Amino acid sequence: MIKNTQPTLHTCLSPALLQLFDLSNSIVVIIDVLRATSTIATALYNGAKAIVPVDSVADCIRIGKQIEAITAGERDGQVAEGLQYGNSPFEYPAEFITGKTLVLTTTNGTKLLHMALDKGAPEVITGSFPNLSAVTNYLLQQQKNVVLACAAWKDKINIEDTLFAGAVINTIKNDFSLNCDSSQIALTLYNCAKPDLYEFMKAHDASHYHRLTNFGLEKDIRFCLTADGSPVLPMYRDGKLVKHM
Amino acid sequence: MIKNTQPTLHTCLSPALLQLFDLSNSIVVIIDVLRATSTIATALYNGAKAIVPVDSVADCIRIGKQIEAITAGERDGQVAEGLQYGNSPFEYPAEFITGKTLVLTTTNGTKLLHMALDKGAPEVITGSFPNLSAVTNYLLQQQKNVVLACAAWKDKINIEDTLFAGAVINTIKNDFSLNCDSSQIALTLYNCAKPDLYEFMKAHDASHYHRLTNFGLEKDIRFCLTADGSPVLPMYRDGKLVKHM
Repeated sequence: MIKNTQPTLHTCLSPALLQLFDLSNSIVVIIDVLRATSTIATALYNGAKAIVPVDSVADCIRIGKQIEAITAGERDGQVAEGLQYGNSPFEYPAEFITGKTLVLTTTNGTKLLHMALDKGAPEVITGSFPNLSAVTNYLLQQQKNVVLACAAWKDKINIEDTLFAGAVINTIKNDFSLNCDSSQIALTLYNCAKPDLYEFMKAHDASHYHRLTNFGLEKDIRFCLTADGSPVLPMYRDGKLVKHM
Repeated sequence: MIKNTQPTLHTCLSPALLQLFDLSNSIVVIIDVLRATSTIATALYNGAKAIVPVDSVADCIRIGKQIEAITAGERDGQVAEGLQYGNSPFEYPAEFITGKTLVLTTTNGTKLLHMALDKGAPEVITGSFPNLSAVTNYLLQQQKNVVLACAAWKDKINIEDTLFAGAVINTIKNDFSLNCDSSQIALTLYNCAKPDLYEFMKAHDASHYHRLTNFGLEKDIRFCLTADGSPVLPMYRDGKLVKHM
């Protein structure tokens, strides 16, 4: 059979723009590079059983008690009050996280995930540089419509999530129909930045770069901008993000 | 006196993000490169007395009758039904437009202008490549906070408005504090595109480029991407855009 049309690829650069996109027939990739989706990939790669993404700190505490799980998350880049752990991938090494469930809430990423589900997304995965190839391989294999959904920072577009969208597009663009200026902008940005993503963030005064370096998190940023350190595909199933096999 | 702080510069890439920005103490630059703000600059440069931007086609017709002005505008890139003229800068040469008032409604640009006013913007000007230097000279001279507000296409971010924001930033960045990732993204995009903006639009499948070339408007696009063909500063005063002296 001759394939007449390629699946579409769109990029949504802020949760405040999500209503412009049709998610009903798409794989939605939730992108929160610094640091929610990087931490999700890393915890699962290191053996976490599942990650339960929740909207609020209160829900995180309540559900954590109910299922006897680790509670983790941040608000405004720091561990939220009442939670046990933060949003750094380095908090979840294999010796700590293997076999455990993490209940996670973050300022932007977990909220966007729930927005996408509420908008009828049939399939939600999470993307970050640590699991870049796992994401692109899966999208190439599925050949379904894709929406790359950036978590941004309190609805303000950010450089790092846009860069990750560009990195995905750079790899898969020949297999998708790209009628989306935001995707072209993300791709152009990535191509400028790819010689050294960290230096690009620094040189371009990325607001989140400054927010996190003020907390002494350069190591986190470097890890979160490096491809394929946690090669795993987190997929949302029955209220949880689990490793796709 | 030592100047401690520079004024801020922010870029809003879609009207759907406008609520994230504080307009109350800023000059807001409305940007609708293809073609509303290019046409506004050109009509004023060619001698139009004023341009009355209105939201709806119905208002355009009503006000046009009341003040005996020319009615013009588009919906979805074509002359709107009931209006006399369209949204092309070439429809407004000096021999036609001198001394006349134009009532204009467009899909995105005039709507955004009213959103900015409703949000309390104390000073609104319009920007486009044909009046790029007039805009940057004014902003450098005023040294007030600036919000570059892109009209986009039905809230979807577009390449051409982002490019114009980048062109403005490229010229004025040293005089402003840029703590805004969208501004950095726009600047990076512009620096990639500036060797040939038209070719960049074409090569990157800009959705509006395709929309307009389907209507045979290559000439319009080339004009709208060329700097300083209509060197004038449109400024909103008492319900009208007039030439700033």
